[in-house]
Amino acid sequence: MNEETAAPSAYALAQRQGDRAIRTTILDAASRLLAAEGSQALALRRIAAEVGCSTTVLYRMFGGKAGLTEALFIEGFERFRQRLAAVPRHPDPRDYVRELGRAYRANALAERNYYGLMFGETVPGFQPGEEAMATAASAYAVLEDAVAACAAAGLLIDAAPGHVAASFWAGIHGFVSLELGGHLDDPEAILDAFMRGAASGFFVDAPPPVQDPK
Amino acid sequence: MNEETAAPSAYALAQRQGDRAIRTTILDAASRLLAAEGSQALALRRIAAEVGCSTTVLYRMFGGKAGLTEALFIEGFERFRQRLAAVPRHPDPRDYVRELGRAYRANALAERNYYGLMFGETVPGFQPGEEAMATAASAYAVLEDAVAACAAAGLLIDAAPGHVAASFWAGIHGFVSLELGGHLDDPEAILDAFMRGAASGFFVDAPPPVQDPK
Repeated sequence: MNEETAAPSAYALAQRQGDRAIRTTILDAASRLLAAEGSQALALRRIAAEVGCSTTVLYRMFGGKAGLTEALFIEGFERFRQRLAAVPRHPDPRDYVRELGRAYRANALAERNYYGLMFGETVPGFQPGEEAMATAASAYAVLEDAVAACAAAGLLIDAAPGHVAASFWAGIHGFVSLELGGHLDDPEAILDAFMRGAASGFFVDAPPPVQDPK
Repeated sequence: MNEETAAPSAYALAQRQGDRAIRTTILDAASRLLAAEGSQALALRRIAAEVGCSTTVLYRMFGGKAGLTEALFIEGFERFRQRLAAVPRHPDPRDYVRELGRAYRANALAERNYYGLMFGETVPGFQPGEEAMATAASAYAVLEDAVAACAAAGLLIDAAPGHVAASFWAGIHGFVSLELGGHLDDPEAILDAFMRGAASGFFVDAPPPVQDPK
């Protein structure tokens, strides 16, 4: 029997499950420290003390501080991507774009400890690697595709769909950053104004339906 | 002759000018360190070494690290306010709002070292004091007044002007944050899409002119 292709043993599965749980525990602790105290808290000894493990565990799992920072970035964007991918397609592609904007916000509120790192604000000088960039791009692609669908349906203003997607993203990103920073008095009402005003400005009315020649 | 009301001597004026120059030099050095290395670089000894003065000078001028942080915040918002206030009123109040958005961006690019601090992203836990909050509010009031003028002219969508102003601010803030972070491929084109799309979505067409009964 070939060990490489055999189904993993119950023991091996439990081990993997345990590794995943440990990994998530460490990443959540590190992102919490990062958000609360800034990048100086992102020290392996500090994180190990917080989690209750040795620094050896951290070195084994992440290779060091740079690997841990990279893993935090990937984790943040992967959760973000999953949340966007879970938004159901709306019959009107313009409403689907707006719903993605709301999901963007929901993710930022639920995962606020990851948010600053993802947009390069809390770890000065951090440069994500190849896998991290690919994860971020696949999250962003959900929004890009949704805006492209509006363009294909003739519902977009006369501007490059990529520029509209980036501009919509920037708007929601700014809203979320200010909300997380406690700068907005009434976030719900301001988001509503954004969706009714800014988001609508990117769209035009539906073109008249083509007459069926039959 | 009453010393308190007499014109200051040339010596006193030169001293004041020198104090202002020293103050600006220190604040610019501190904001540069903050932007480049994060909040752990905001240590008085580090800043004193950078500027080439003793920490005593910093204590005398700012009272300590908290006072220096507060001074940085005020300086950033004061430069920001001056830049917004310098934008000429446009005959169409909608264009004036858009021009303020562009000035917001110009200020962020020119004063990027102050930008993160102003929006609470680079110094975790920093809470601006009363004078700092008043400076920030007077900068923001320029935008609020401009949006209120659009509402008064019947050019705003049916939403509270304060919510529209906050939403417009959030959009520009997000754009600038992403641009400063190097996340935007073609900032000029994306800003243009924002101004044509998002900014326009807040406005309606001019109401028909009232007929002169004469």
